Amino acid sequence: MIDTIRELAKKTDEKILMVVLDGVGGLPMALGGDTELATAKTPNLDALAAESQLGLVELVGAGITPGSGPGHLSLFGYDPIKFVVGRGALSAVGIGVKLNAGDVAVRGNFATLEGDRIIKDRRAGRPSDEKNAEIVKKLRAGIQSIDGIPVEIYTESEHRFVVVFRAQGTPLGANLSDVDPQATGVQPMTAEAHDEASQTTAQLVNRFVQQAEALLKDETQVNGVLFRGYSDVPHFPSFDDIYQLNAACIASYPMYKGLASLVGMDVLEVEGEEDALSGKVEALKQAWGEYDFFYFHIKKTDSTGEDGDFKAKVKKVELFDALLPELLALEPDVLCIVGDHSTPSKLATHSWHPVPLLIRSPYGRKDLAQRYTEDEALRGSLGLRKGTDIMPLLMANALKLQKYGA
Amino acid sequence: MIDTIRELAKKTDEKILMVVLDGVGGLPMALGGDTELATAKTPNLDALAAESQLGLVELVGAGITPGSGPGHLSLFGYDPIKFVVGRGALSAVGIGVKLNAGDVAVRGNFATLEGDRIIKDRRAGRPSDEKNAEIVKKLRAGIQSIDGIPVEIYTESEHRFVVVFRAQGTPLGANLSDVDPQATGVQPMTAEAHDEASQTTAQLVNRFVQQAEALLKDETQVNGVLFRGYSDVPHFPSFDDIYQLNAACIASYPMYKGLASLVGMDVLEVEGEEDALSGKVEALKQAWGEYDFFYFHIKKTDSTGEDGDFKAKVKKVELFDALLPELLALEPDVLCIVGDHSTPSKLATHSWHPVPLLIRSPYGRKDLAQRYTEDEALRGSLGLRKGTDIMPLLMANALKLQKYGA
Repeated sequence: MIDTIRELAKKTDEKILMVVLDGVGGLPMALGGDTELATAKTPNLDALAAESQLGLVELVGAGITPGSGPGHLSLFGYDPIKFVVGRGALSAVGIGVKLNAGDVAVRGNFATLEGDRIIKDRRAGRPSDEKNAEIVKKLRAGIQSIDGIPVEIYTESEHRFVVVFRAQGTPLGANLSDVDPQATGVQPMTAEAHDEASQTTAQLVNRFVQQAEALLKDETQVNGVLFRGYSDVPHFPSFDDIYQLNAACIASYPMYKGLASLVGMDVLEVEGEEDALSGKVEALKQAWGEYDFFYFHIKKTDSTGEDGDFKAKVKKVELFDALLPELLALEPDVLCIVGDHSTPSKLATHSWHPVPLLIRSPYGRKDLAQRYTEDEALRGSLGLRKGTDIMPLLMANALKLQKYGA
Repeated sequence: MIDTIRELAKKTDEKILMVVLDGVGGLPMALGGDTELATAKTPNLDALAAESQLGLVELVGAGITPGSGPGHLSLFGYDPIKFVVGRGALSAVGIGVKLNAGDVAVRGNFATLEGDRIIKDRRAGRPSDEKNAEIVKKLRAGIQSIDGIPVEIYTESEHRFVVVFRAQGTPLGANLSDVDPQATGVQPMTAEAHDEASQTTAQLVNRFVQQAEALLKDETQVNGVLFRGYSDVPHFPSFDDIYQLNAACIASYPMYKGLASLVGMDVLEVEGEEDALSGKVEALKQAWGEYDFFYFHIKKTDSTGEDGDFKAKVKKVELFDALLPELLALEPDVLCIVGDHSTPSKLATHSWHPVPLLIRSPYGRKDLAQRYTEDEALRGSLGLRKGTDIMPLLMANALKLQKYGA
């Protein structure tokens, strides 16, 4: 479908604002009760819903709980079953590292080795993030490049770290075997290339393992490295290429900025800490004249759900409701409110439940849904849909799609 | 899916009547108001809806505005992304020219040339249809065949015309380059074949250009021809082959008769001008005993929408309501009312909005929809579906599909 959309897309002046309330879909704590969205007092969102089209979306498929990556790819119109961001790339993106064509990102675990390089603990006793950072500093001091290829090392969390090999001209392949045997009592494995393009990468990985063990030989617990999940930079058709949209990302967390940049959006500077609500609104106002598509991300609806804190999630919805008038004041031609997945406080984790979708444009039909909630959305005119339907619907409502066939 | 349906289809006596109200889906003129269908007084349609199953269909996909060709192919069960009718064939079909296997249809523009065949105007100053017909007459007098291949020339409208090369035995290919450079200040291009089968066609096209220029050399404005959009006859599995239906088309506009004949329906004679409502009903009654599937097309619901004339579209819906009892009197076993796309008066053009679908058969469930309108259809039992679901549903309701698997 993406090819059809690309053929039909045309440039117009209309502006689209897509607000993503991360993990906004919820569940009642007891069967038959109200969800977080239904419990929240949201006068502004209610008024908006009454004049908008509502529906529900499944971001990946029935029963599938989306990770943030696939959830967002679906929102951006990329079928997440077909367009896959490798684990290494997602880790790099998640900590805000920009990848360039030809680079390879690798996920690593710190491990505890003993005797003749025998793995005693695949997670090195789960070190603190501080200890992780200290080890990374040591590795960085000793390894800046291998065979002329720049090497970057980053802390992820606990025992997890990320290595990026920066290609110099020739692209590096990512088709090689793991170093991590996924077992204790054995030695780390030697990485082997599965194709020509990955020969150099395998050599880099094996030399890295060797050098890291030498640099960490005086450590008692964190003295080995294991690799699993290599990925090159995903080659997606860019957002601009498909939709002819000049798109901006307004988000404060590295993962979302990274995903937006992977599909070719401009990532705007946002001032402020944590979810930086007012900083985001400020960034949106500043950039309003310069772009025709805005991806506006709010994180805390998810985090509070992940904490299993129903009341706190309700509060975060109400906080969004309070800033909604500032978004409406910009008068977007098409406004969309949606989430990348559900995160019910009851489950304290992402879930498979469909997410309410709201679209406001001048070209909507009468819609029976009166609020932006899971059960009201059932009465909406948009029905239950795939997440990848959202972008075509927004494009259509912004009159940015030509007729298909004569 | 079409292969599965073909395997399961069986012949029965049940008769299916598919009424296509062209462009029937609409929008309220102001948000929250009534659409054309909801505004129309339709006592007969209301009574029918109350005892039928309702739902909504997207003919091509979410957000995609269907042209009449793709919209109808979807209604007939052919996925319009997979089954494509080329522009040349669609133009020919649109003016009522029947194509046979091996023929090639080509879209042409009349152009103004000056000096050494330099294109001054790619549309020859948009001549009137009368002028177009006069030029076509001149060309017909001079070109009846080229190299033994019969050549037919037809007026489309303004600067547009269609040429059909009739294959004699060996099929003609349609894989060749354009004559139209899509620029002024340059000469027309020479068509070049991209494959063996199109060598003859390229030669025919180039000779046609030469001969046409000679025939039009005394014209000041319409003195050149440009070609773009060659197509051979699409090779679709026929309606009869897939569904084992003996199908008839009752329509008054060439485009719809052409589309029906492309999939192998018998096109019946309809008396009367324009939408020829009573002529169509008469044709239906006459042929009722001879076929088991009828495609019954009404055009004016679309034309009035295209004119942006809300009131006139409402009237056309009411006109259909008035003749509905005559259709019901024939007692079709399965009756379907649907459109090939929406044409909201508000947009004065085709749109992406789903179209209400009504199916009446003895095998329906309780359905909450009380009228054939966009918002009542939301409450129907058929849900929001792809257009290609319609034919299997009609076949099933006519008990014409065997069980799948044991």
